[in-house]
Amino acid sequence: MHLLPVMEGLHSAEAFTQPFVAEFLELVRQVERRPEKFADALRGKVIATIFEEPSTRTRLSFESAAHRLGAGVITVADPKTSSVVKGETLRDTARVIGGYADLLVWRHPHDGASRLAAQFAGVPVVNGGDGRLGHPTQTLLDLYTLYKKWGSFEGRVVGILGDLLHGRTARSLAWGLTMMGASVVVLPGPGLDWEPGFESRILERYGYRLARLSHSLFKEWTGSEQARVLEPKGLVQGRLFQGDAPIVERLDALYLTRLQDERGAGEQSAGVFPGLKAHQLQAPILKDTFFLHPLPRRDEIPEFVDADPRAIYFEQARLGPIVRQAVFLAMLCSEHYSLPPLRPLPSGDAEHSMGACPNPSCITHFEGMRPPWRVEGRIRWIFLCAYCDTALQAHYVGCRSSRRVHPAHSPQVPKIRPENLRPFADRESAIAQGFRWGGG
Amino acid sequence: MHLLPVMEGLHSAEAFTQPFVAEFLELVRQVERRPEKFADALRGKVIATIFEEPSTRTRLSFESAAHRLGAGVITVADPKTSSVVKGETLRDTARVIGGYADLLVWRHPHDGASRLAAQFAGVPVVNGGDGRLGHPTQTLLDLYTLYKKWGSFEGRVVGILGDLLHGRTARSLAWGLTMMGASVVVLPGPGLDWEPGFESRILERYGYRLARLSHSLFKEWTGSEQARVLEPKGLVQGRLFQGDAPIVERLDALYLTRLQDERGAGEQSAGVFPGLKAHQLQAPILKDTFFLHPLPRRDEIPEFVDADPRAIYFEQARLGPIVRQAVFLAMLCSEHYSLPPLRPLPSGDAEHSMGACPNPSCITHFEGMRPPWRVEGRIRWIFLCAYCDTALQAHYVGCRSSRRVHPAHSPQVPKIRPENLRPFADRESAIAQGFRWGGG
Amino acid sequence: MHLLPVMEGLHSAEAFTQPFVAEFLELVRQVERRPEKFADALRGKVIATIFEEPSTRTRLSFESAAHRLGAGVITVADPKTSSVVKGETLRDTARVIGGYADLLVWRHPHDGASRLAAQFAGVPVVNGGDGRLGHPTQTLLDLYTLYKKWGSFEGRVVGILGDLLHGRTARSLAWGLTMMGASVVVLPGPGLDWEPGFESRILERYGYRLARLSHSLFKEWTGSEQARVLEPKGLVQGRLFQGDAPIVERLDALYLTRLQDERGAGEQSAGVFPGLKAHQLQAPILKDTFFLHPLPRRDEIPEFVDADPRAIYFEQARLGPIVRQAVFLAMLCSEHYSLPPLRPLPSGDAEHSMGACPNPSCITHFEGMRPPWRVEGRIRWIFLCAYCDTALQAHYVGCRSSRRVHPAHSPQVPKIRPENLRPFADRESAIAQGFRWGGG
Repeated sequence: MHLLPVMEGLHSAEAFTQPFVAEFLELVRQVERRPEKFADALRGKVIATIFEEPSTRTRLSFESAAHRLGAGVITVADPKTSSVVKGETLRDTARVIGGYADLLVWRHPHDGASRLAAQFAGVPVVNGGDGRLGHPTQTLLDLYTLYKKWGSFEGRVVGILGDLLHGRTARSLAWGLTMMGASVVVLPGPGLDWEPGFESRILERYGYRLARLSHSLFKEWTGSEQARVLEPKGLVQGRLFQGDAPIVERLDALYLTRLQDERGAGEQSAGVFPGLKAHQLQAPILKDTFFLHPLPRRDEIPEFVDADPRAIYFEQARLGPIVRQAVFLAMLCSEHYSLPPLRPLPSGDAEHSMGACPNPSCITHFEGMRPPWRVEGRIRWIFLCAYCDTALQAHYVGCRSSRRVHPAHSPQVPKIRPENLRPFADRESAIAQGFRWGGG
Repeated sequence: MHLLPVMEGLHSAEAFTQPFVAEFLELVRQVERRPEKFADALRGKVIATIFEEPSTRTRLSFESAAHRLGAGVITVADPKTSSVVKGETLRDTARVIGGYADLLVWRHPHDGASRLAAQFAGVPVVNGGDGRLGHPTQTLLDLYTLYKKWGSFEGRVVGILGDLLHGRTARSLAWGLTMMGASVVVLPGPGLDWEPGFESRILERYGYRLARLSHSLFKEWTGSEQARVLEPKGLVQGRLFQGDAPIVERLDALYLTRLQDERGAGEQSAGVFPGLKAHQLQAPILKDTFFLHPLPRRDEIPEFVDADPRAIYFEQARLGPIVRQAVFLAMLCSEHYSLPPLRPLPSGDAEHSMGACPNPSCITHFEGMRPPWRVEGRIRWIFLCAYCDTALQAHYVGCRSSRRVHPAHSPQVPKIRPENLRPFADRESAIAQGFRWGGG
Repeated sequence: MHLLPVMEGLHSAEAFTQPFVAEFLELVRQVERRPEKFADALRGKVIATIFEEPSTRTRLSFESAAHRLGAGVITVADPKTSSVVKGETLRDTARVIGGYADLLVWRHPHDGASRLAAQFAGVPVVNGGDGRLGHPTQTLLDLYTLYKKWGSFEGRVVGILGDLLHGRTARSLAWGLTMMGASVVVLPGPGLDWEPGFESRILERYGYRLARLSHSLFKEWTGSEQARVLEPKGLVQGRLFQGDAPIVERLDALYLTRLQDERGAGEQSAGVFPGLKAHQLQAPILKDTFFLHPLPRRDEIPEFVDADPRAIYFEQARLGPIVRQAVFLAMLCSEHYSLPPLRPLPSGDAEHSMGACPNPSCITHFEGMRPPWRVEGRIRWIFLCAYCDTALQAHYVGCRSSRRVHPAHSPQVPKIRPENLRPFADRESAIAQGFRWGGG
């Protein structure tokens, strides 16, 4: 089962490719320069915005984009009036609204909802933010904001500061920046680091390695002077040497985020959440640093910073509709604005014995479904929930061709072709299904 | 007082006529075939969707239709923000919003609200579902879905299954199908039959008669192998003979509905609500049966049925905006897309002594009004609430011309001309108003 | 700090000028006469309606206007889904949404919110009603409704009846009518008079004086036969003589309002709220009186009045979108539909020691801000909160040029040039800031 073909939608920053992003940013630039050229591009089309979580600004940004292209907009902005009240599955809702509109923008509280919806909608689905996992148009917007300033990402060093655990924008941006060749300084607030498995997927995908940099400012933010850095391998060899972590001299941009109270964060970090302080603004490391923030902000950025030329978060917000215009154009007018393909996710399959998805926020739990899986990895196969990207319990892996089953870490397993993979949580299930023991 | 002139709005399937529906279905076909032709048909017009009950899908379907015709849409989707909070009558709301838009789509929790709104709005009102009584555009959509498959309704046999008591779509569809010449097999869940007065109005209007058919499958759904059938009189003569009810051999379509929890159903039928089961799909009676459902569904149709070619409920949903485009065209562009007139409802009158409407959900109770009446019937006059179609208490009927009053069942009463009718709940009221006793 | 430049938005009726209103009313007349001419005037523009207080009719009226001009509309209608939930300031919300749309219509529960939003939005802001202070487009609508009937306001006498304390429409209309030369008879319900400072600002601005008129009907409405009248000075000299207040012979219009329960009114006037009664309709004083009402109404106007030709409140409502079309045209198409400038408000300044704004509903309290001030007045300076127009505590006034401070009532103070004003709540603060005592 090939779940997520190219251009069926925009679900996560992980599906971006460097050529896709590069051409996309050029398309945004065209839209920004000559908006009048696109005023009727979607005349006669209808775009649905379905926001099952409150998010006024994201919704308005998408809707503004649709109107600027001449599309009609139908919208569900109040979760309480949605069909969920009548006990409908997301699958059915996607099928029905997919019959009413030419493209769906979907924001949903549960991880993987956008991908699930895309399977059933029959029209492209754009993830407007689902659960904790992804917010890809925000990433495109963040990248475009920096692209306008820099023209290129290579050699740039970007700090990502704050709630990396609950915030989807930080996560998605890390994918985007590393894809484009920038280095990412990971600056989580205390107790708010992202899970290690996330970072290692990035490192593997883009040939990056993990280094360490230090700066006294980092201690004010994270509690430690040292910070992890995701760096292109070439770069690191030139910079990292024996002994202490080198002191970083400049950040080209600092991406601040707020504490995601509404995602269950809060108590653990109250009162020590990192942000910009007046005295920090004079630090040489921040001399030419652009400050970005997905907004809304709280205390991370005091209001007096707004007038500082390094503060570009309101310009960033203003670019939101323009970037989303380009998203709509690429999806609905591909004959005129074709882009390189998104990264096709490897085949998924619902047949397995790996049990339920271990992520309690995964959409599969709310849809009464077993999680279909897909595989990632080069050195060894990692089995992920095809919707929410959480690793599934695959302690044993069988080969459909040889009908043999092996422990997951067996050197035999990487030799199995993807289309022959059959994962199992335990050996007994494999045997029960007619697989023979193939050894470790 | 002539309450509801032709084309002042679309309030109930009872106002349809066979020529109206026949030409309407052809108009829908035109819209479906050449949507681009209609993209600017309503440019410059504004359509208001007022949903005082949650119904995301119906609202979006209407709004999508409006956008596809180039109209602007203003919408009230959250009952709690409406003027009702400020204590306004529906009459005033209709007048005001009628000044803002060229057509109103109104969904309201109380029976007859759409007709009442149409009296005051000054622009056409389309019933988007009011109370338990009607949902006429859903009926047009249901009919068009079958029309696409069949081309004609004559000789077709359609089962209507589930919650006939609370569901307005089932009720409206029964009117539509019998009008178009199909037979309707009435398959209510236990305790969920519609009230008998409803059925007898259909029989009288279209010259149908009530027959019985039996099938073992019916027992799984309704608790009885026998089911009532509304059949054209000609047909029945050929099929119904002495003794047991004949066994029906095929259903051309089966219209499933869900239990209408939000309308007060629920406890009486929990757990035994009828729907499709896996083993039933092989039954010969369902061999060429199209399955329809107004959606959202619950357990009436298991998800594995979706891939069955007989399942056309998602196609049905997809046709919603197209059918509603045709509704808007017929109402707002009648110079180009004129249709045969709707059935004009006989004159109504607010002058009577029949007391309040016995239907506690009737809009009159919430508007502080006495119910105006209209008359139905050929053999004898039935006095109905002009808004919600509930029978009023008319035990005595006077003649304004002769100034005489008779018992309602008197053979004198059918001789009174409609414009001279004056109904009374009791004899004393009639005498008090100067009527003389005319005898039984 | 010049807070509120001309045409940066439409915030309060106080900023209107007679030439502005006169030409505006002519523009409305053009729109009403030839609506088709304006159908594409705003094609490609996006208008945002942000309603942080429920007001269905006002929102729909603005949105209908936008659609009739071909603009796209993005809307926030449910306060609970707004960014406020995420703890964002109005300043930030204004900045962000100002980047999404070409014009913002903002309704907000707190006084002065519209002006504050306009400072940060970067695009024009139209006050859709904020707190208790203003609702300028309603006033333009009220004036246009009368202008259609009369052609001119001079010599007209208009009663304003009901809740003058909490209602913003009554307050704004009083400004508009006096600006245009009409006399206003002030008819508050018991305990519902506006505050005196408000009236005196009107008198001073337009060279009006306060007179008294009497009529027995007034007693039924206000509890007293005598009523205050705001009259052009010329008029009064001819009419007011010694002894009792003269009896007014006619009202050209009567503007009724409802009790503003949702603004905290209620208990003090329950049951005695003034409105039209059947017997009053025959009174000679009301013979040629147009009845207006901003709607929704309650019991102020019984429904049987609706059919009376003097009742024009539904026509008034119908004109709402047309008037708002003209507002949008004047603001977004000023090259074609330029109007005389609004009255520029004098410069404001955030530097002072007058403490917090005494108005507990002022937006400054909810934004954590000190109130910037502006000055009003000819004879002596009155220091007002630049957002909500409430008088601030300026017991001492310094001159930045002479560095001397004086008691506010000193004859020296009016001689200080506006740009040198520096208000203080107390003498000590002035001395502490280096001002010398300049005497009384």
